Amino acid sequence: MLIVQKYGGTSVGSPELIRRVAGRVAHLRASGNEVVVVVSAMGDATDRLVDLAREICAVPVPRELDALLATGEQVSVALLAMALNASGVAARSYLGTQVRVRTSDVHTRARIEAVETGRLRDALGAGFVPVVAGFQGVAASGDITTIGRGGSDTTAVALAVALKADECQILTDVDGVYTTDPRMVPDARRLERLSYEEMLELAGQGSRVLHLRSVEFAAKYGMVLRVLPSHGEGGGTLIDREGRGVEAPLVSGIAFNRDEAQVSVARLPQSADLAYRLLQPVAAANIEVDMIVLNANGDGTADFSFTVHRDDHVEAMRLVASAITVHPHATVNGTDRVAKLSLVGVGMRSHAGVAARLFETLANAGIAVRLISTSEIRISVLLEETALEVAVRDAHRAFGLSGND
Amino acid sequence: MLIVQKYGGTSVGSPELIRRVAGRVAHLRASGNEVVVVVSAMGDATDRLVDLAREICAVPVPRELDALLATGEQVSVALLAMALNASGVAARSYLGTQVRVRTSDVHTRARIEAVETGRLRDALGAGFVPVVAGFQGVAASGDITTIGRGGSDTTAVALAVALKADECQILTDVDGVYTTDPRMVPDARRLERLSYEEMLELAGQGSRVLHLRSVEFAAKYGMVLRVLPSHGEGGGTLIDREGRGVEAPLVSGIAFNRDEAQVSVARLPQSADLAYRLLQPVAAANIEVDMIVLNANGDGTADFSFTVHRDDHVEAMRLVASAITVHPHATVNGTDRVAKLSLVGVGMRSHAGVAARLFETLANAGIAVRLISTSEIRISVLLEETALEVAVRDAHRAFGLSGND
Repeated sequence: MLIVQKYGGTSVGSPELIRRVAGRVAHLRASGNEVVVVVSAMGDATDRLVDLAREICAVPVPRELDALLATGEQVSVALLAMALNASGVAARSYLGTQVRVRTSDVHTRARIEAVETGRLRDALGAGFVPVVAGFQGVAASGDITTIGRGGSDTTAVALAVALKADECQILTDVDGVYTTDPRMVPDARRLERLSYEEMLELAGQGSRVLHLRSVEFAAKYGMVLRVLPSHGEGGGTLIDREGRGVEAPLVSGIAFNRDEAQVSVARLPQSADLAYRLLQPVAAANIEVDMIVLNANGDGTADFSFTVHRDDHVEAMRLVASAITVHPHATVNGTDRVAKLSLVGVGMRSHAGVAARLFETLANAGIAVRLISTSEIRISVLLEETALEVAVRDAHRAFGLSGND
Repeated sequence: MLIVQKYGGTSVGSPELIRRVAGRVAHLRASGNEVVVVVSAMGDATDRLVDLAREICAVPVPRELDALLATGEQVSVALLAMALNASGVAARSYLGTQVRVRTSDVHTRARIEAVETGRLRDALGAGFVPVVAGFQGVAASGDITTIGRGGSDTTAVALAVALKADECQILTDVDGVYTTDPRMVPDARRLERLSYEEMLELAGQGSRVLHLRSVEFAAKYGMVLRVLPSHGEGGGTLIDREGRGVEAPLVSGIAFNRDEAQVSVARLPQSADLAYRLLQPVAAANIEVDMIVLNANGDGTADFSFTVHRDDHVEAMRLVASAITVHPHATVNGTDRVAKLSLVGVGMRSHAGVAARLFETLANAGIAVRLISTSEIRISVLLEETALEVAVRDAHRAFGLSGND
């Protein structure tokens, strides 16, 4: 098998951990597999580099920020290649500029356009384990680019697709994808298998195991993903097209997110461009909007709500307040003491009643729902933040996700 | 004027110092000059990277050590380019692989073979200040190489030569080249001008202002070098072909070196291959030999001495002891409590009596000379380490080098 393995920052956070990763790669190699390794920067190295840049100036030029940040992964690939060689596995480090991982020229958030495989194939053919720097690439100009936080997952999938690998393994500090965060619900269960769609909804809704873009990329090319614990045995979650297929339960998992803030406008005169006029200035300020709900009251007025990241709440409130000054009766309200809970599962597609059972569960616990949004395989509700923990536990039990069900 | 400026590690040791360097470059640019900047790694960054590699394994593979060490300069060029842009000077960082500084493929001590100037000329033409990573290059294979400690000086001179710059300025934490180390002799004087030859002897004999290879390189191509203080005004030492010409005094400066250790063999049967047989195993062990003295006693025996770096003393003693086991009467002696003093000056060439005056000065102070070696413009003596300070001060006065002479 040709396997691409990606190790995240916490998995290579110290020389000791890097030597352990080398041991694991050596083992996989000794079992007769061809291996390509992708590595992130060590521990909090990227944060420390960002802090250093901030000491130079408040807004560093993006081209130079990329050149600076790329050193984080360069350090870890060099150290892991040293560790592999020291444990008897011939290995060579490769940077984004060396492989060439070709990207767009948008610094700090470039998109991978193509991965050249010549050097990697030569290295594999000569018996080397290529150790490739994640997160970084090269623009047509020859400049170093980076592809945004969490980008190493995407580098790994892009390499796996380009090399036609048998699977792409993401090794991390958890042993797989769970029905919900085990820190909140102790009897949360590890999921053996998931579909790309389910993983996308879980990742997008705040589950931090895999980066969203990497799952989209894998889904697009049908690359099999496997989440595994980087240190320790067993476990893991397989993510592919099938998921659990016809055996899929109603709900596969529950994601939640505490970073939400709500902005609401009541009693706006209804008009076709109402949502546009309120959201356009928010979008123009580069503020990402998550849930959007509009409700017509039937008396010619409408209520409108949306959620943003908490860091953007004050600015979003200000922008919306300016946008509605022409309507004397309209009022803007908002709070950043809210959290979002999402049920995810391909089973929802063909089964009604998931929403009803969720609302019943929340009502029994006396928890009010502030906003609702849905997709084909997801239902999300916005709640008071103080109610989140009870809501996740009760829903986890109500949908039969707990370990002893 | 087109000026290449090189800033060493202590000059860019913190974000605050990097901003000060940016201010200085901005000033030079505002005076109507074209500027290319070469930078070393910040402060002790290279040492910290070497320590990190040692935590992975005792002897890291050289290819990966180079990839690791190159991050040190990558960090400083990115930060300096940010600082320049922040202070209104358009600037772009370039790595050895981007410029391309082409080197041999001997990792950790590659030789610069050629510097491509296309990208730098384009950047200059477009009004940018190129900020180039010192110490690093790229092998024909595309692998990152480094050119050895102190290599950034050599990078700067190579760039200046390739770009046909008007001069190459080395900015450092001292304000010029002195008649001797001012920490030892408080009234040591700064030299306004020196010839390449004198600087080579001073650099080679332990004066740490400039790296030896960079002076050789400048001498070969006649590139004017100027040593300047990186923070603070004035001063400086100009180094070119002329030096002070006919006005040159007998002695320009005194260098000294405390890293010496002596190995001596007495009463060896004299033979044509004596020096070869003793030094060959030392050279084979990659131990650098500095002074070499052989004295035939006239009775068919000879005494032989040489000096090595103190770190290599034990090993050199062992190798020589093995080499002479066939000679029962020969004895090996050695000490690492010695130091070397060197007088340097083009004036020596045409004036006899320098050695005599030196020996007189040392004799007056009761200091014994253990070894002597000479070149056309230098005379070096090996002394007890405890006598070094008095010897340097007395010689500094005897040759009229002190500030108030």
